[in-house]
Amino acid sequence: MQFSIAHLGPAGTYAEAAATAYVRYLVETKGLKSSLYPYPSIAQTLWAVARGEVDLGVVPVENSIEGSVSMTLDTLWQIDTLQIQQALVLPISHALISLAKNPQEIEVVYSHPQALAQCQEWLNQNLPQVRQIATNSTTEALQHLDQETTAGAIASERAASLYQLPILAHPINDYPDNCTRFWVVSLQPSPGGNHTSLAFSVLENKPGILVKPLQVFAEQGINMSRIESRPTKRLLGDYLFFIDLEANTCDQSVKLALAELATYTKTLKIFGSYSIVNR
Amino acid sequence: MQFSIAHLGPAGTYAEAAATAYVRYLVETKGLKSSLYPYPSIAQTLWAVARGEVDLGVVPVENSIEGSVSMTLDTLWQIDTLQIQQALVLPISHALISLAKNPQEIEVVYSHPQALAQCQEWLNQNLPQVRQIATNSTTEALQHLDQETTAGAIASERAASLYQLPILAHPINDYPDNCTRFWVVSLQPSPGGNHTSLAFSVLENKPGILVKPLQVFAEQGINMSRIESRPTKRLLGDYLFFIDLEANTCDQSVKLALAELATYTKTLKIFGSYSIVNR
Repeated sequence: MQFSIAHLGPAGTYAEAAATAYVRYLVETKGLKSSLYPYPSIAQTLWAVARGEVDLGVVPVENSIEGSVSMTLDTLWQIDTLQIQQALVLPISHALISLAKNPQEIEVVYSHPQALAQCQEWLNQNLPQVRQIATNSTTEALQHLDQETTAGAIASERAASLYQLPILAHPINDYPDNCTRFWVVSLQPSPGGNHTSLAFSVLENKPGILVKPLQVFAEQGINMSRIESRPTKRLLGDYLFFIDLEANTCDQSVKLALAELATYTKTLKIFGSYSIVNR
Repeated sequence: MQFSIAHLGPAGTYAEAAATAYVRYLVETKGLKSSLYPYPSIAQTLWAVARGEVDLGVVPVENSIEGSVSMTLDTLWQIDTLQIQQALVLPISHALISLAKNPQEIEVVYSHPQALAQCQEWLNQNLPQVRQIATNSTTEALQHLDQETTAGAIASERAASLYQLPILAHPINDYPDNCTRFWVVSLQPSPGGNHTSLAFSVLENKPGILVKPLQVFAEQGINMSRIESRPTKRLLGDYLFFIDLEANTCDQSVKLALAELATYTKTLKIFGSYSIVNR
């Protein structure tokens, strides 16, 4: 059996690097083979899994510098059928790639908005005059270099070597400990593990309603490792919450907490329990 | 006396519309006159206030569809000296602006990433093949239209009339109740009011540490209207929290809660108490 794995493409994106790391992990731990299928956006990657076009999808969830990837959280909430199989943490290191002879010749820099944001200080100090233009992926940024010799792109070292383009500076990320967490999702039930992710909308906007749902976990001695709010898109001040727990949905304490949580929430979606792999 | 007010420019941005609404508010309520100073980014707007180049700055904080404006929160935390004078809530309505004869001729659409995100469904349904390119502001997007007759821009109706450009479709936002909340900040102490905003980093990452700081407000009967987490940028899984309270820092209950909060937090920054104006 061969797994099909969707990711934000084309080849050379950080999402492809994460998907490749997961392919290696499946070979090493389970002897399973798989192949990669690039999609043009994170939303389309997740919908491809939901529609059964592919078995699995690998999507970025949060970066240590730029925070949550809203598109991933909003689409997961919307789709409602995907379960997390595994979390992957990957170090992120950005390179300035260009056919210009030196960085001073560069007039415009292309990259994914998250990558641009992660190199803001470096760009301000070294290339203060350049225009910054957002692209759908770090790899798409590289496509501008052939036509424009005064253009630069921010992408990985691996992308530069894949497309045989010269690196002018590396690393250029403002913070050295730059990591991104990815989720591997599918239509299958999650396998269980020490980490559980869920999301909910609250019953109504009354005093204390934001804290009560969070307290149920503390009362059961369950640690929350992350609280992320997203707008419901209905009304300003109306939120969804995405929560990560250091616990397994099979634990009795989690079962009790979730039963109580359901009394405070309007909609409660459990994305499953899984383990984390650092690569 | 005349106030100088910084905002994300140039003329025609939603930030300028918010700044203009605040200028009117100052005239109507206090008889004060003021003039506007556009800056090229949100970060530069806030730093201009911090350095005393201008008296006040108007910046977007959160949108009802796309959520928090990370640049505003991250820069406010970094600067550390700005206080909120006032919150403003403005309805947001996007128009497709272009010199093309009809939407079908459009090959590329320019806009600020938040505006593009707020019109994703409309674009997918009506212009599925167009390239979407991010700009620093909705007004900057309009600058592409003169050179490219197959280009469109997403901006406000007001911007279209300001630059005498034709509107091809309006409104094109995916959700009709689209609002953005802005903060007016300065180096002066905040005036007081029913809303208080603060941010903190937690003491250490141990069980329950994310919930305890939030509980102190519930224990004092203070309602939290918003919880937003941002990465500290040091380590994946290490967060700052931005909290909005429906209370005034002068209230005895808030004083007690803040004293207890300080025992759980590493750094605690209070951005002040203020009122909200809907325009």
